[in-house]
Amino acid sequence: MLEKKILLTNCPDDKGLIAKITNICYKHQLNIIHNNEFVDFETKHFFMRTELEGIFNDETLLADLNFSLPVGTNNQLISVKKKRIVILVTKEAHCLGDILMKNYYGGLDVEIAAVIGNHDTLRNLVERFDIPFHCISHEGLTRVEHDKLLAEKIDQYAPDYIVLAKYMRVLNPEFVARYPNRVINIHHSFLPAFIGARPYHQAYERGVKIIGATAHFINNELDQGPIIMQNVINVDHTYSADAMMRAGRDVEKTVLTKALDLALQDRIFVYKNKTIIL
Amino acid sequence: MLEKKILLTNCPDDKGLIAKITNICYKHQLNIIHNNEFVDFETKHFFMRTELEGIFNDETLLADLNFSLPVGTNNQLISVKKKRIVILVTKEAHCLGDILMKNYYGGLDVEIAAVIGNHDTLRNLVERFDIPFHCISHEGLTRVEHDKLLAEKIDQYAPDYIVLAKYMRVLNPEFVARYPNRVINIHHSFLPAFIGARPYHQAYERGVKIIGATAHFINNELDQGPIIMQNVINVDHTYSADAMMRAGRDVEKTVLTKALDLALQDRIFVYKNKTIIL
Amino acid sequence: MLEKKILLTNCPDDKGLIAKITNICYKHQLNIIHNNEFVDFETKHFFMRTELEGIFNDETLLADLNFSLPVGTNNQLISVKKKRIVILVTKEAHCLGDILMKNYYGGLDVEIAAVIGNHDTLRNLVERFDIPFHCISHEGLTRVEHDKLLAEKIDQYAPDYIVLAKYMRVLNPEFVARYPNRVINIHHSFLPAFIGARPYHQAYERGVKIIGATAHFINNELDQGPIIMQNVINVDHTYSADAMMRAGRDVEKTVLTKALDLALQDRIFVYKNKTIIL
Amino acid sequence: MLEKKILLTNCPDDKGLIAKITNICYKHQLNIIHNNEFVDFETKHFFMRTELEGIFNDETLLADLNFSLPVGTNNQLISVKKKRIVILVTKEAHCLGDILMKNYYGGLDVEIAAVIGNHDTLRNLVERFDIPFHCISHEGLTRVEHDKLLAEKIDQYAPDYIVLAKYMRVLNPEFVARYPNRVINIHHSFLPAFIGARPYHQAYERGVKIIGATAHFINNELDQGPIIMQNVINVDHTYSADAMMRAGRDVEKTVLTKALDLALQDRIFVYKNKTIIL
Repeated sequence: MLEKKILLTNCPDDKGLIAKITNICYKHQLNIIHNNEFVDFETKHFFMRTELEGIFNDETLLADLNFSLPVGTNNQLISVKKKRIVILVTKEAHCLGDILMKNYYGGLDVEIAAVIGNHDTLRNLVERFDIPFHCISHEGLTRVEHDKLLAEKIDQYAPDYIVLAKYMRVLNPEFVARYPNRVINIHHSFLPAFIGARPYHQAYERGVKIIGATAHFINNELDQGPIIMQNVINVDHTYSADAMMRAGRDVEKTVLTKALDLALQDRIFVYKNKTIIL
Repeated sequence: MLEKKILLTNCPDDKGLIAKITNICYKHQLNIIHNNEFVDFETKHFFMRTELEGIFNDETLLADLNFSLPVGTNNQLISVKKKRIVILVTKEAHCLGDILMKNYYGGLDVEIAAVIGNHDTLRNLVERFDIPFHCISHEGLTRVEHDKLLAEKIDQYAPDYIVLAKYMRVLNPEFVARYPNRVINIHHSFLPAFIGARPYHQAYERGVKIIGATAHFINNELDQGPIIMQNVINVDHTYSADAMMRAGRDVEKTVLTKALDLALQDRIFVYKNKTIIL
Repeated sequence: MLEKKILLTNCPDDKGLIAKITNICYKHQLNIIHNNEFVDFETKHFFMRTELEGIFNDETLLADLNFSLPVGTNNQLISVKKKRIVILVTKEAHCLGDILMKNYYGGLDVEIAAVIGNHDTLRNLVERFDIPFHCISHEGLTRVEHDKLLAEKIDQYAPDYIVLAKYMRVLNPEFVARYPNRVINIHHSFLPAFIGARPYHQAYERGVKIIGATAHFINNELDQGPIIMQNVINVDHTYSADAMMRAGRDVEKTVLTKALDLALQDRIFVYKNKTIIL
Repeated sequence: MLEKKILLTNCPDDKGLIAKITNICYKHQLNIIHNNEFVDFETKHFFMRTELEGIFNDETLLADLNFSLPVGTNNQLISVKKKRIVILVTKEAHCLGDILMKNYYGGLDVEIAAVIGNHDTLRNLVERFDIPFHCISHEGLTRVEHDKLLAEKIDQYAPDYIVLAKYMRVLNPEFVARYPNRVINIHHSFLPAFIGARPYHQAYERGVKIIGATAHFINNELDQGPIIMQNVINVDHTYSADAMMRAGRDVEKTVLTKALDLALQDRIFVYKNKTIIL
């Protein structure tokens, strides 16, 4: 029976890479549905994403690829199927709500395995959608202890990605290291402007005419992870800091949901703290 | 000596096309700098644009490609060099001015061979840039006669593209047929809204909140040719028809110049009255 | 006790109108929180929206205004309080879902009194938010009969506005006349492009590079009512008609919710089939 | 004979300000063409811009206003006439070129009195438009000495505004103090992101997905002056730092020209290092 899989290849650039990869696919009688590649001429690195259809022998396909391609090649062959996420939240509903609703009506193809909050505020909303909600309070715990409880609960669901939908706490390095390039955060500013706390108040103080939001994978530096997507809206002198915050919510939710959608489609490569999106 | 050329291929879709094309390039020891392809699953047609670097034997390369690829394949191998355009104008300066200025400072890589106006209004501007200006008045001539004079003058310069930078006359079918997919027009509305004359007045009457501009190749139906690029700006109740027209000029000039830039880079395929831009 | 009200004035333009209106407010010891005015110089008509705070004697305030202002003046004094809407739907959830969710988390200040569908599809979603859902099927009924049933049900809730959140039927003139400038529709194209059915398929066929959505008050001509808000997104040759439709949903929901928000804030004047938004 | 003037008022907020100002205008038999006001509720400050038409007695009008309005009121009455600018440049032509060209075809209503460069590079372009160009080299001079020469030359032309169209040097505090809120700069990033040198390289290193430009009045802190206008464009992984720079030029020129246009229309108030644009 015909299956669909996605081949993600990245390796040092060389002559004939596309020919080699597409030849091997052809010899395996796999049809290429979509193909995108990119060469970063600064780092001399090659990236290719290929949607394939056919009957797969994963082992020999990957062996053939590894044999033909340069030393240092990284190949991933991923089955196209619904992915699973766990969402972390605090008290704000707009990003969570957009993911719940888009998923409800089929605008986002994902299984929301569970939502975990460090407050109980959003339980009611989550349970309206018949999704498990767990409150894991941080009170009385060190950051490491709390993150450990989160990780234990997360791991019960074995998610593909973890989505920080306005989770307002910094996660410790051990947690970050446990899920490399698998934790997507929404920051409520146009990074690198207004790193850190209260970005809308910073934006108001500075008198900017545009505000934005940034979806990124988290790493161990605050708001410094690889950027997946950004978007902005115009503001003017009539906007108080609160009005900016309210207007910004629509950008935040849109950016996070679209960034998640890119991840769900296996379209994001992370390389040297940047994303290549094919 | 290493040269750069662009290979444009379109053909009925089939298995292994990318492999075949990139293999042939590899065997010719040509390096692929950029590669983009697209399969239109509705028409089952395949499009590929490949930037190549190496030492070219055009004849054998094209022969090898034609031998390997399906019946109905169209291959073009284009040397990367500065292209030549002739610009047609009437009285308005903004689109012409943007092309002249961007070209002056190197923002557009083109040789402006000449500007032809059916009025003499823009001679002064053009000659400031040391470019020949020809006034070919339409007065006392039939459309066919006038277009014939235009074509004769145009052909003296053997341009790659003809740019209608607010040329406010309809060109007759014979003229259109002479330069297939080589005449780029800017229409001052977001097509297909407001086809025909005075689109800003139509937009004002309708009370729209967004106005736009459309760059397209011309064909024999008014404002119906393949669309290359569109852009819009927000307007509101404070805009009179004249204010819309003034605001629209910035969109018109931006859209036309960017569409021209795509053409100059050989990035546009035209297929079934649509553009595929790779 | 201090109250907040909004004064909406429109009248033939004359000298001193702002002075007259703001003087009367001042003499009534009302503080102006926000004030916006607009003169349409083509129709020579004056529009002003004034947010007032103080202790109101509505009768004498309106009498003073009517006495001072020109013949043909229309004054409305509206208390600032939560408005009530009824939403009409068919089967698609995205616009309804966005209103439900934004209202849930306080991003939209409205009471959703009820949702009425001509199919039962969206009952489950609506009831998750503890809002009454009524299915009024059109089967076996004439348009007039069906619209009459809708109106009867709507009137039980005495809504300020009726929102057509992808209600896929045309409403008859009697229904339209019953709720002048109170029925907000979302059309899934950038009007006046692609009036009528299947606009995304029309857009796909035409090969446009931008698609959009339009929120408007309904009148008796299909897709011809006063436009409140429009927005667009870029598309390209990779979008099938279906992909345009999916991408368009995000624009539709955003535009409808924002247009509704303007109406809820009493910021929209309708004059000669256009909106003035202050 | 009827004249047009613009009244700019700012003062501590109080009750009845609009009534008082518009009354005085009415008593002076001045017609209000456009009126915009704004109250900053945080600083409790009132701003109003009124376009007036009639026969003016400036002295008594201003005396009447000052008598009626609170202590601390600032009134300016400005005749509507073509303003004069001097442009400072270094070597890049795109911002200068856009101003020259828009002014040439009437898209910008300004007299370009002169262009001054610290290099001679742009003389040729400027002289094509019959505008004086002065090269004042900074070589062998201290910053203070050089800026003094600039100021002397600028003052010969008595400009309303000075436009830094990619003038790549920092101006000393004395120069800045000489022209308060009259020097408009374009910074090639979306401030406050990427303050300082080589912002496109900084943006490239960070892997942002949007780049921008910021027009602002200069003050004594680098890139910290009141922001007039900002705009952005999308970029992605295919953009090198150089490609970002080229793409950014279009945003820079658009933002600077539009910000200048706002200044030419006397629409900008500066208050507490922010702009209020009415």
